[in-house]
Amino acid sequence: MLIVKKFGGTSVADKERIFNVARRCIEDYKNGNEVVVVLSAMGKQTDVLLAQAKDINPNASKRELDMLLTTGEQISVALMAMAMDSLGVPAVSLNAFQVAMHTTSVYSNARLKKIDTDRIKNELANKKIVIVTGFQGVNKFDDYTTLGRGGSDTTAVALAAALHADKCEIFTDVDGVFTADPRIVKNARKLNEITYDEMLELATLGAGVLHNRSVEMAKKYGVELVVRSSLNTTEGTVVKEEVKMEKMLVSGVACDRNAARIAVIGLEDQPGVAFKLFNHLAKYNINVDIIIQSIGRDGTKDISFTVDGDKVDEAVKILERHRETSLKCEKIDVEESIAKVSIVGAGMMSNAGVAAKMFEALYDVGVNIKMISTSEIRVTVIIDDVHVDKAMNAVHESFSLADF
Amino acid sequence: MLIVKKFGGTSVADKERIFNVARRCIEDYKNGNEVVVVLSAMGKQTDVLLAQAKDINPNASKRELDMLLTTGEQISVALMAMAMDSLGVPAVSLNAFQVAMHTTSVYSNARLKKIDTDRIKNELANKKIVIVTGFQGVNKFDDYTTLGRGGSDTTAVALAAALHADKCEIFTDVDGVFTADPRIVKNARKLNEITYDEMLELATLGAGVLHNRSVEMAKKYGVELVVRSSLNTTEGTVVKEEVKMEKMLVSGVACDRNAARIAVIGLEDQPGVAFKLFNHLAKYNINVDIIIQSIGRDGTKDISFTVDGDKVDEAVKILERHRETSLKCEKIDVEESIAKVSIVGAGMMSNAGVAAKMFEALYDVGVNIKMISTSEIRVTVIIDDVHVDKAMNAVHESFSLADF
Repeated sequence: MLIVKKFGGTSVADKERIFNVARRCIEDYKNGNEVVVVLSAMGKQTDVLLAQAKDINPNASKRELDMLLTTGEQISVALMAMAMDSLGVPAVSLNAFQVAMHTTSVYSNARLKKIDTDRIKNELANKKIVIVTGFQGVNKFDDYTTLGRGGSDTTAVALAAALHADKCEIFTDVDGVFTADPRIVKNARKLNEITYDEMLELATLGAGVLHNRSVEMAKKYGVELVVRSSLNTTEGTVVKEEVKMEKMLVSGVACDRNAARIAVIGLEDQPGVAFKLFNHLAKYNINVDIIIQSIGRDGTKDISFTVDGDKVDEAVKILERHRETSLKCEKIDVEESIAKVSIVGAGMMSNAGVAAKMFEALYDVGVNIKMISTSEIRVTVIIDDVHVDKAMNAVHESFSLADF
Repeated sequence: MLIVKKFGGTSVADKERIFNVARRCIEDYKNGNEVVVVLSAMGKQTDVLLAQAKDINPNASKRELDMLLTTGEQISVALMAMAMDSLGVPAVSLNAFQVAMHTTSVYSNARLKKIDTDRIKNELANKKIVIVTGFQGVNKFDDYTTLGRGGSDTTAVALAAALHADKCEIFTDVDGVFTADPRIVKNARKLNEITYDEMLELATLGAGVLHNRSVEMAKKYGVELVVRSSLNTTEGTVVKEEVKMEKMLVSGVACDRNAARIAVIGLEDQPGVAFKLFNHLAKYNINVDIIIQSIGRDGTKDISFTVDGDKVDEAVKILERHRETSLKCEKIDVEESIAKVSIVGAGMMSNAGVAAKMFEALYDVGVNIKMISTSEIRVTVIIDDVHVDKAMNAVHESFSLADF
C-alpha cells in the first residue's frame, strides 16, 4: 500500500516530536507499505522568517519572501531524514526542485499544476521513505513559489493523487472532524466519516482542520483523506465521496468569529450599483461572503455584506474613496462584533425544515439573527459575537449531534 | 564592468551589516557596473544547523547535511535582495538550482564542474543586482552538495571565471593580505599585491584570508582577485599572476599552530615501509604535511611527519592498529605543542641564502628548529609552539618586511 502522510509544523516543532513522527512513519514502512511524508516548517519557523523579512523590508517582494520561506520546510525534511536514518530506516528528503512540483507563477499563493513522480518512485523503489517539503513549488521561471495558507495539506493531497496513493493521512492536533468545536460545545462528537462537500463547507467556514483547497483537490481526484491526531492513534475522520452509514441530516455546527459586516446605506436604485461596489473590492482581492440587498427609503437601496475581520479596514477605506464618485451612497456602517454560525450536512438537501429547525433553536435561547445565507448543504446565520457559545450549543443540541 | 563581490557570514550577520553590504554593492551598481554578489550563511547559522543535526543524528548522512546546510545561504540571499529592493535597487536572489551550479557528486566536499550563466546574464540584462548562494551546488542526482570550508570563495571565483568578470572582490574582516599576522607581529604591513603562487602557499599555511581552492581556481582561469575589508574602504590586496612592483625576496611570514608531529620509531629498513605507513593514513583521508625519514639504531629507520592538530588522534589510532602487523615499529611518539612558521615569496626562487637567513634569525632569538621543509617559494620550519611570537617577529624583522 502506498501511503502519503502529512504532518504540520507543531508535529515537528522539536527533536522529540520529530522522532515521534519518524517512528509513526517507520511503523507503516515496516508493515510493508511505501511511505511518502509531507512536512511543514518546524513550529513557528515560518513566522520567525517572516518577522526577519519584515524587519529588513516591510514591503518585501513576494518572490523573495517565497525564496526565504521555502528554507523552512527544507530544514524539516532534512532533519526528519536524519531522524529516520538514526532509527535504522533509509530515508531521503526532497524539496520542490528535486521532486519537481510545478506551480502557477503567482508568488505566495501559487497553485500546483503538475507533479513529476519519477524521482519519488525511484526512491520508493530503492526502499526509502521519501520526505517531501510541503507548501512549496517551482514556477516556470525556475523560482520558488509557496501555496498559501494550508499549502502543505494541498501538497499531500496532490502527491497522493499523482502517485495514486491508497491513503492520504493528514495529521493534526485534534482527533478528527467534530460535530462542533469541542472548546465551545462540550459534548461535541468526533465524526467517523464525512463527505468532501460537507468538509468543504466546514473548511470554508473556518473549522480549521483542513484547508479547503486540499479538500477540493481530494474531491476532484477522488483521494480518500483521513484526518487524525499526531498525538495519539485514534482512528480519525475519513473524508470521501459518499459516507456509507445512514446519512445524518446535519454533520456539524461550525462558527467563524473573524467576520465583520459592512452596510452601504442609501445607494441609488439603478442597474450596475452592486457591480461597481463589489468590483472596487475585487480589485484589491477582498473576498466578500454573505451579501444582502434591501430596499432603503426614498427609492434608494442598502447593501450589506460580510468580509474577513482582518480585511474590514482596507475594505472600508476603498469604499470611502469612491463614496462621492462612483458609489454615491449616504453612509457606510461597520459592525465588527459579529460571528457566523453554520450547520453543514449532505442530508439536508433532501430534507425540508432543516433551516427552520436551526432558527427555532436560536429563537429558543433568545439569539437574534442578523443575516442568513444558505447553500444546498449549509445554513449560515450572522449573529452577535457574544452569543456564539449559546447559539452553537443550542443548535448542536437541537439536531442531537452528540447522540449518534 | 562586471564585478563579482563575495561577503562571508560575519558581513551579513545582522540587519545593519546586511544593509552595509547592500549599500556597498549598490554603489558599484549606480556607477554603471553589473554586480553579482556571492553570500555565505548569516553569522553562525551553519554552526546552529550543524548542532541541530548532531542533536538528532550524530552520524547524519552527508547528503542530508548538505540538504540542511544549503538553507543557510538561501536565507542570506533572500534577505539581501529584500534589503536592496528597499533601497530602491532591483535585485534577485538565486540558489544553486536556479543558477545551476553543477558539481561532482561528493557530498560535503564537492568540486564545481560547470556553472550555467544564462539565468544570471538575463537578470543582469534586466538591470538587476544578482545575489547568488555561495558554498553550494547541485550534483548529477539533482541533490544539493556543499563545497567544503571556504566554499563561498570558490563560488565567487568560479562565477567570475564563468562570467568573464572584470574583477572578483573577496570581502573579509581584515584589510587584505599582510606580511604577517598583525596580532603577532605588531608592525606587519599590508601587501598591495601578491602572486597567486605566494597566496597559495600562504593559504595552505593557514593564513586564513582566502581558501586555497579559490586561489588555485583564480590562477587557473586568470581571475584577478582583490582581498579587502568589508568594514572600511581601504584598497586591499590584489592577487594576480605577476606583481608589477619590484619583487621582494619574501612577501610574508605565516604560522600555523594547529599542527602535530607524529614520530614512528624503529621501523624495519626495507622497501615499502613508507608506502605502507602513509597508505594507511591516506585511506582515512588524513593529509600528511612535512615528512622526515632518518636512520635509526640497529639498522632500523624512523619516520616523522606532521598532520593537522585535529587529525592527530585518529592518525595515531590507525597506526596503532597496524603497529604489530604491517608496520612492525618499536613505538609511536606524538608531540602536539608544535607550530609551523613559514616564509613565502616568489623572489626567493632566484635568491640563494634566503633559508639560511631565516635560520639565522631564529638562532639569534634562541629558537630550536625541529623540522625543515622547503618548496620553490617557501621555507617552513617546525618549532615549539611557545616560541611562535618570538620567531615570527624575528623573521619578519630580519627580512625588513615592515619597511617596504
